[in-house]
Amino acid sequence: MPLSEFDLIERYFRGCGAKRADVRVGVGDDAAIIDFPAGVELVAAVDTLVAGVHFPPGSPAASIGHRALAVNLSDLAAMGARPAWALLALTLPEADESWLSEFAAGMAALARAHDVALVGGDTTSGPLCVTVQLLGHVPRSAALLRSGGRAGDALFVSGTPGDAAAGLGIEQGRLPGVGKSAMYLRERFLYPTPRLALGERLRNYASACIDVSDGLLGDAGKLARASGCGAQIAYEEVPVSEALLDAVGEEGARKLALTGGDDYELCFSVRPAHVGRLLAELPPERWGYARIGTLRETSGADVLRGGAVMSFSYSGYDHFSPPDATSHNT
Amino acid sequence: MPLSEFDLIERYFRGCGAKRADVRVGVGDDAAIIDFPAGVELVAAVDTLVAGVHFPPGSPAASIGHRALAVNLSDLAAMGARPAWALLALTLPEADESWLSEFAAGMAALARAHDVALVGGDTTSGPLCVTVQLLGHVPRSAALLRSGGRAGDALFVSGTPGDAAAGLGIEQGRLPGVGKSAMYLRERFLYPTPRLALGERLRNYASACIDVSDGLLGDAGKLARASGCGAQIAYEEVPVSEALLDAVGEEGARKLALTGGDDYELCFSVRPAHVGRLLAELPPERWGYARIGTLRETSGADVLRGGAVMSFSYSGYDHFSPPDATSHNT
Repeated sequence: MPLSEFDLIERYFRGCGAKRADVRVGVGDDAAIIDFPAGVELVAAVDTLVAGVHFPPGSPAASIGHRALAVNLSDLAAMGARPAWALLALTLPEADESWLSEFAAGMAALARAHDVALVGGDTTSGPLCVTVQLLGHVPRSAALLRSGGRAGDALFVSGTPGDAAAGLGIEQGRLPGVGKSAMYLRERFLYPTPRLALGERLRNYASACIDVSDGLLGDAGKLARASGCGAQIAYEEVPVSEALLDAVGEEGARKLALTGGDDYELCFSVRPAHVGRLLAELPPERWGYARIGTLRETSGADVLRGGAVMSFSYSGYDHFSPPDATSHNT
Repeated sequence: MPLSEFDLIERYFRGCGAKRADVRVGVGDDAAIIDFPAGVELVAAVDTLVAGVHFPPGSPAASIGHRALAVNLSDLAAMGARPAWALLALTLPEADESWLSEFAAGMAALARAHDVALVGGDTTSGPLCVTVQLLGHVPRSAALLRSGGRAGDALFVSGTPGDAAAGLGIEQGRLPGVGKSAMYLRERFLYPTPRLALGERLRNYASACIDVSDGLLGDAGKLARASGCGAQIAYEEVPVSEALLDAVGEEGARKLALTGGDDYELCFSVRPAHVGRLLAELPPERWGYARIGTLRETSGADVLRGGAVMSFSYSGYDHFSPPDATSHNT
């Protein structure tokens, strides 16, 4: 007996994630109703994962559930916002119960960790495609925008970018998959960590912030462009993990850190006058971030190595241009 | 030169729909920021259209843009809510500029008509799939739920259901496509009218409400089930349009009206004591609705014709069960 759409939603998605007292009507009516808190602004993001584009066919269902929420949590982290409510649009070729159960468990665990309730959704048949809409809030006029930077601001990144890109390479069999480093990198791709606590703290320090999802160099360039300036990144300062160095060597590691996707780290700028306070109050070794460069007057985003500008053929993921059609300098 | 994802969003979706003063940050940052009004509850819906499932391949792009928003507007109408902000997740096989331009125009026209601003989105490459998340608001504790009905309540439907199902039949070449009636029915499928003004007014009269998207009989059954009762519909009272009668005859028209999908009308229940006030204050001939039956103690949803219960093999669209596996009585 096939699982009906109604049963599917009831069984896997009603009550998925955190229980929140402010959800008046959740999954099961025409729309969700939320008792929105006073004195804050509403923050909303949407992101889609498509099979074969954002994850290899055959990825673990729990990872797909985790990542579909994580990419949106990361968007809210980049605004300095606190997530609260999610809606899921799930297109599936078939209602495979063991797949659904793992998918829902992967999403639910991450949702509970961040106090996010799944309040609505839609399931349809078709090629596997997962869209999550995430809602949250931020104190009035306190959100971190991409556009707040200016020339002279220090530029930082959280975590160790490039790990997820190497993990994807392992998933796809392009990099060897044995050993502790490979296991670590694969986990970084399959189960990324959105930097929500850091994002909220950064409201007190950062002038601009962006979520690093399409490659650090490209996303730093987007922050700079939105801020009406450019970015200069010091090759030697780009943080790389031991696991990544172990897997691809130093040159490969820094290249992946600058151009690989799927990191879901934060890239942010800080006024020179606030850098000391940031470093003292949010110690980098505890909060996991590093200074990588500076915003500058000249537009574009460059990487400097020993004083010379490096050239990269490709600096960010773009869904509608072939890699060689874009350059970070144009 | 291919259109980049950034250019695509800039060109077609920035500023799409209404301009609203409460949008602090719209398309272009990691998430949207909205100055949410005080004293109301947040209402959120999500719905996906998949090519080949929700519309025939080759449907006009303007219709796809219109319908992707309309199905969500209809969900908010069913809650008695007012829509305000939308996010779009668009998965496309290729960035075809003339298709995108028509798609965006179809969505924008409907968005402007209902004062909805497009505040965010995500474009990805993959099989054509459109997900819209719609946000709006409703006065505190005033939303219309599916669960508020009780036995004895009168049951109503807006518009003339079945027209869209016939229109789809014409689009698919299963019904003849010439003549004024065919043109009308095709329009009802391609450009459905969400009943937002009626939904808001019904807050003062209805005990429960649902959006008719999967077939009137099935959706009336869902309302009844959520209300802990059953529904009885009078075959002769189901409203059918002249165009539908013209296209498929009386038997065919009522069958489509009861079981066809894609109507985006409202089915609602009203306490017997409030029916007189409803009919007087919202005249049915002006507001376009009709009484079709009654909620009853016994569960399930039946259609009575000349005193006898009719049998339908299929009473609603379910994405994961074959039509013959479900029955409105089980």
